[in-house]
Amino acid sequence: MTLKGFRFAAVEAAIKKPGRRDLALLFSDQPAHVAAVFTTNKVQAAPVIISRERAKNGIARAVLVNSGNANACTGEQGMRDALSCGRRTAEALGLPDEELLIASTGVIGQPLPMERFKAGIQPLVDALDHGSLEDVAAAIMTTDTFAKLERRTGQAGGVSYQIEGVAKGAGMIQPNMATMLSFLVTDAAVEPALLRKAFGEAVEASFNSITVDGDMSTNDTALIIANGAAGNPVIKEGTPEAAEFLTLLNEVTLSLAKLIVKDGEGATKFVTVKVRGAHSVPDAKKAALAIANSLLVKTAFFGQDANWGRIIAAVGYAGVQVDQDRVEIRFDDVVMAKNGIFVGGSAEADGTEVLKRPDFTVAVDLHLGSAEAAVYTSDLSYDYVRINADYRT
Amino acid sequence: MTLKGFRFAAVEAAIKKPGRRDLALLFSDQPAHVAAVFTTNKVQAAPVIISRERAKNGIARAVLVNSGNANACTGEQGMRDALSCGRRTAEALGLPDEELLIASTGVIGQPLPMERFKAGIQPLVDALDHGSLEDVAAAIMTTDTFAKLERRTGQAGGVSYQIEGVAKGAGMIQPNMATMLSFLVTDAAVEPALLRKAFGEAVEASFNSITVDGDMSTNDTALIIANGAAGNPVIKEGTPEAAEFLTLLNEVTLSLAKLIVKDGEGATKFVTVKVRGAHSVPDAKKAALAIANSLLVKTAFFGQDANWGRIIAAVGYAGVQVDQDRVEIRFDDVVMAKNGIFVGGSAEADGTEVLKRPDFTVAVDLHLGSAEAAVYTSDLSYDYVRINADYRT
Repeated sequence: MTLKGFRFAAVEAAIKKPGRRDLALLFSDQPAHVAAVFTTNKVQAAPVIISRERAKNGIARAVLVNSGNANACTGEQGMRDALSCGRRTAEALGLPDEELLIASTGVIGQPLPMERFKAGIQPLVDALDHGSLEDVAAAIMTTDTFAKLERRTGQAGGVSYQIEGVAKGAGMIQPNMATMLSFLVTDAAVEPALLRKAFGEAVEASFNSITVDGDMSTNDTALIIANGAAGNPVIKEGTPEAAEFLTLLNEVTLSLAKLIVKDGEGATKFVTVKVRGAHSVPDAKKAALAIANSLLVKTAFFGQDANWGRIIAAVGYAGVQVDQDRVEIRFDDVVMAKNGIFVGGSAEADGTEVLKRPDFTVAVDLHLGSAEAAVYTSDLSYDYVRINADYRT
Repeated sequence: MTLKGFRFAAVEAAIKKPGRRDLALLFSDQPAHVAAVFTTNKVQAAPVIISRERAKNGIARAVLVNSGNANACTGEQGMRDALSCGRRTAEALGLPDEELLIASTGVIGQPLPMERFKAGIQPLVDALDHGSLEDVAAAIMTTDTFAKLERRTGQAGGVSYQIEGVAKGAGMIQPNMATMLSFLVTDAAVEPALLRKAFGEAVEASFNSITVDGDMSTNDTALIIANGAAGNPVIKEGTPEAAEFLTLLNEVTLSLAKLIVKDGEGATKFVTVKVRGAHSVPDAKKAALAIANSLLVKTAFFGQDANWGRIIAAVGYAGVQVDQDRVEIRFDDVVMAKNGIFVGGSAEADGTEVLKRPDFTVAVDLHLGSAEAAVYTSDLSYDYVRINADYRT
């Protein structure tokens, strides 16, 4: 299956290190609906402020993205720069400014290199004739070590459609998304209200459920553009087609989110932290995040040390309802602690074996209620320190 | 000046690695008042549960401390063990159980080695005849690299008195104190209500204003015992003597707190984070802690990278009132950002010079109000990862 009615491009504008593409464009040949989610950081980059306003209209046909410079903490100059790059690109595409969204990622506090950026715009637009979504996935990378792309095929009224998406992550990954960009496109025709609702739910269960270092950036943006070019009967809420669309959308966002964690700076482990038996879903997620963000827990993962004590301590300070005499902790299939105490026997040896796996699950049951949540994280390694002690995009 | 009416002891009971003292005792020869603060972690060690209850009486003459085992997450067995060790020690001292407090630090989830612990009690009590506070400071160390002791001399009604204290820290240091023990003694006569109030304020500005890794333990305990053996007229609230006592008490607790940060696991920098111009003191402290606990900020400190962008990003997600166009950031005397944007010029080079210092201040002015707060932290180094990836007490 091929995606209909979208074109893509990426070029090198020398915003990033030489030899790496750093300017990308997503374009719909026809009018399209958009749903978008942005960082909740109170310090927001110019492109976030602009795109958040424009996305409110629910209409967008293009996304202009640069890597290498976040255009964050750049004041009024940053706003003027973002607006003028956007205007120049919209003109070249024959669009009103408002139908083009902008996203940036990279170093904070440096003004955009406007001459090089603007010089790259016409070549970028020209490249739409021979570009691909893979090109976009590569151009938005910063400290990412591999490009992240996912696609699914669905059916509505006998017509096939595509949902495809790219993402970048690496550092500063934390709920409410941190330095994370993800752009999804679909040629399915979807009710705008359903698109917004479905995307909001998909983001909450994916990009807002991963954490690498607990930091949150100023530039996070996740959006989906739906242009209906597949020609399917419009997918409406409450139908089996809507359920299938939501399932596929969740598969794409969750898969991209997990790829971001697997590519977390210096990560050697992929860890799923599940908390169940909580009083509420927010409690379950808070406890899971306290575990996933604990430096002592993350370094124990790196050291393959079955230190369940650090995990129960993190649950204790998470600020959620906990009865320490009920807490149960498992590493994959190995029960480490029951009723808040070590089970003994071969648990330490067995748990250590689990932690030697590259991918395992820490499951905590609070035995208080029926709510649960899962978050995805990585360990904390020497390389995380090395990469971030001398970080340059 | 010498402290009157207290005796100290430390022995080796083989709870910790061989060759290191791990059992300590503080004892007042006469009835004394106590004020104490404990961890707010909802998972609490047996000694914390017991000592919190006993301290409510405001009366205590002895503190029994062991390192090498936290007696946390040990269930009813842990409570029985702590009570029986306490009872045996109180008997040997001729005290009612309730006048002896207990504290433990070390590995979580392992039962106390009761035979060795109990075998150590009589030798410990006997050692009171020739022990010192220095012995206690050494015996409570876990991953600490040096012993922490502070003392001050005060005057009340022409009579001199001492305030002396010890502390241990290293890992899991975060407000509400984490794996942190501190025991203060004074031979001053102080009104019990004043002692409680003064100690609470001193702890808030010291032990509750430091963070190494954001983790919080199950065993944190800070207490002061005042026995009046100096023979001064009782220090009463609202007098100049009370003001001097509070000043000296704050000097002892803040100095001990800073020593804990300087000895933070793998620390190569001592950083004071000051936030001013906040809407409220809690806002100022929250913002300072967000900066101090940011892995990206801490690794930048380690890398001596003047990355003010990570600092403003941390302020943005701290969950406090922020106007990004007003934020000002300084490294010591170097202004890095004003009105939320980089000041340019030689700031990056000058800021980098500041970060090369072993001890510097990051000052953030939100320019919103008049509230301020300071916290003290360290950087995040390879050694932090090394120590915690293979942690054994």
